[in-house]
Amino acid sequence: MRDVLPDEAELRDRTTDTILRVYRRHGFRRVETPALESIGLLTRGQGGENEKLIFKVLKRGEKLDLTGSIGEADLVDLGLRFDLTVPLSRYYARHHARLPKPFRAVQIGPVWRAERPQRGRYRQFTQCDIDILGVHSEAAEIELIVATTEALAALGLGDLRVRLNDRRLLTAMAGWCGFRRDRHEGVFIALDKLDKVGAAGVRQDLERAGHPEVAIERMLALLAEFGDGPGVERRLEVLQARLGDAGAEAAFASLGCIGRTVEAAAAGRFRLVFDPTLVRGMTYYTGPIFEIAAAASGSSIAGGGRYDALIGTLLGRDVPATGFSIGFERVIALLLERPAAMRRGERRVALRYDEATADLGRALEVARALRDQGHLVALEPRGKHVGRQRAMLAEQGFDGVADFDEPALGGSLVSLTTPVAPAPPLPAIHWFRPEASVPRPEAER
Amino acid sequence: MRDVLPDEAELRDRTTDTILRVYRRHGFRRVETPALESIGLLTRGQGGENEKLIFKVLKRGEKLDLTGSIGEADLVDLGLRFDLTVPLSRYYARHHARLPKPFRAVQIGPVWRAERPQRGRYRQFTQCDIDILGVHSEAAEIELIVATTEALAALGLGDLRVRLNDRRLLTAMAGWCGFRRDRHEGVFIALDKLDKVGAAGVRQDLERAGHPEVAIERMLALLAEFGDGPGVERRLEVLQARLGDAGAEAAFASLGCIGRTVEAAAAGRFRLVFDPTLVRGMTYYTGPIFEIAAAASGSSIAGGGRYDALIGTLLGRDVPATGFSIGFERVIALLLERPAAMRRGERRVALRYDEATADLGRALEVARALRDQGHLVALEPRGKHVGRQRAMLAEQGFDGVADFDEPALGGSLVSLTTPVAPAPPLPAIHWFRPEASVPRPEAER
Repeated sequence: MRDVLPDEAELRDRTTDTILRVYRRHGFRRVETPALESIGLLTRGQGGENEKLIFKVLKRGEKLDLTGSIGEADLVDLGLRFDLTVPLSRYYARHHARLPKPFRAVQIGPVWRAERPQRGRYRQFTQCDIDILGVHSEAAEIELIVATTEALAALGLGDLRVRLNDRRLLTAMAGWCGFRRDRHEGVFIALDKLDKVGAAGVRQDLERAGHPEVAIERMLALLAEFGDGPGVERRLEVLQARLGDAGAEAAFASLGCIGRTVEAAAAGRFRLVFDPTLVRGMTYYTGPIFEIAAAASGSSIAGGGRYDALIGTLLGRDVPATGFSIGFERVIALLLERPAAMRRGERRVALRYDEATADLGRALEVARALRDQGHLVALEPRGKHVGRQRAMLAEQGFDGVADFDEPALGGSLVSLTTPVAPAPPLPAIHWFRPEASVPRPEAER
Repeated sequence: MRDVLPDEAELRDRTTDTILRVYRRHGFRRVETPALESIGLLTRGQGGENEKLIFKVLKRGEKLDLTGSIGEADLVDLGLRFDLTVPLSRYYARHHARLPKPFRAVQIGPVWRAERPQRGRYRQFTQCDIDILGVHSEAAEIELIVATTEALAALGLGDLRVRLNDRRLLTAMAGWCGFRRDRHEGVFIALDKLDKVGAAGVRQDLERAGHPEVAIERMLALLAEFGDGPGVERRLEVLQARLGDAGAEAAFASLGCIGRTVEAAAAGRFRLVFDPTLVRGMTYYTGPIFEIAAAASGSSIAGGGRYDALIGTLLGRDVPATGFSIGFERVIALLLERPAAMRRGERRVALRYDEATADLGRALEVARALRDQGHLVALEPRGKHVGRQRAMLAEQGFDGVADFDEPALGGSLVSLTTPVAPAPPLPAIHWFRPEASVPRPEAER
């Protein structure tokens, strides 16, 4: 866990605002659930490895009994959520009668995992999820991909690569190659590393796990047919021709529909590829899965898929569901490296006044007028050394300094909204840096 | 704890945005601290009664030892924060070298208290604090009051009453009346209820607690001199004349300065009164204290004061500090009752398309054009019963419905940003209610 200093905290606010603005335009509605959920909900097996990382909350008052022999289960009743998908499923199961159908949800909030602290990984971090509940058709996947690429583009992350695959296709491929059905998950995990370790690495992994040599050969030959080839549909055709009647017809139809429509909607704004090695970790996925990478860095910044069975475990009847999650902390790390993203729309002005002569009241008036012009204005008592104070203010993140009792020669008068005071003459602002006057970046407009 | 449904969640977002916008204009910087703090920090005695209400987190891994006889202290290492002031003090003590001086902080975030659930009180709720660290002068109190009244006015809560008092004055009053020094806190708590129980009720409280009759008489006579009289300064003069040389000169000087300057800055926008019965619960206050009520409801919606000694307990040297906290949940409860506050700036449109003919791709284009016009657009497959679907969509919060393949006669063409597709003709939107076309409320502009 960590503290966030003001510059980054303000970037996080701008990022959240931009993402929410785009998703709301796409019809997504805001959802808020509490940070604490019952420990029973959090440990139902939906969270996989994450369930081992729950921060558990001690029972309180009479409910806490420390006498006799004690197990952990006797001590805790609540836990901090480890993701936003399990709470959303509970939320939908509880409130579905009062929610639109289909329900498009957007959530941004902290989650907690008791991982060993390491560089770039925190035990509290922000997740940003959209989900569409109640849509069987591929319209759901298409909407999620179109909306999320638009949100990332609005953040200035324009050069995007969307990878697309389907859980059912992975299963069909593994079956066609001859891997044992109960060992598919292990095959998928090895496959997922192709990017990083290459074909030789995947072969080594699969051999070490004792999979049949013939199945390994078949899988690697299949994958070798895919380079960075053209369009989604062409690649799908190649695979379909190879697999033949291997039970993946529905997956091919889904991916074809999603690929065609999203490629048309992309209109060159981002790249879409079908990638038969895309796996996505969570076991609850049941259909199409997808991931977005910033093409420059190659690092994944969003991922999601269809999970038609999860809500059913809480509601008692299945509800078709798809979700897409932006890796908020990854996005912030990328934006922190971009000067354009760190630029604020407004400029920060220190308005200096003279404490000795108690002219604070008039300084407040002038500050108000400068704020009405859109500046962020803080009042600062005048220091003795003008130069030294300027240097200090610049270092502290101010863009300029003004003295309230030194109106600009020829400066325009600003009419105040207060009915009693006359409009004060505005002071000249001395900007520290020329770039302090840059226009706001496109993403914030 | 509770879930927040979309309409309220969106109101909360708008409210947060408006408050942050105003505070940032006043030079406040965003601060984020983690939800979990070390249990040691949270139980140092600064939090008063709140320390009894901490949600405590079980140790993890090897650190958790359940053998032998166990006390609660052996089991926990972290706790959920119960306010934002203690975390801010730790944050400042740790990071002050990298923060501006003075430091103006704004925080909005959840806090947790394990209270018995009751109407309108939740175990997770949002606090919204501003603090100025490093300013000795009354400029700090003045800035806090001016900024907070402006933030509340921007939310449409215009009719505000600000009450002002000083901890040092309360002490001087209690001393002058003849209450024992070690029993002052009890006297203050009784005094605080004057609003609700009247003079007779306060007398009863004080008598029951066994305070000297003569001191009680003196206090009540003193308070009787204050009606809803005029300006802050006049009321202060009355009290000062009565108390004479009772050691409260510094408090009178502070309150006079704050009163004069804030009254001038208010310029009729809000009412300021000096109220010698204002107490504020927290014991860490050391100087001026203040509270804001919505005049209509009379309920307090913000409170704060000076706490010059708190940061010193962590940093080792005192740092002058003042803070003001908006009762976010109280504000939301007030706004939920106001139709104007529930009005969104944008209108929600359901764009219907025909699933059977797979014209989703073109529907996406039209949706994009409508979104570029500022509408919130969700795609909906066309239902069989037009009338029934309309009624359902209206009930689900949509303001209007459009069919993507029925362009408005005479509707204007909108040029798309995509370079390849021709601009689609825009459909006519059938608004469900005339008021769906209202302009956005002032607070959101």
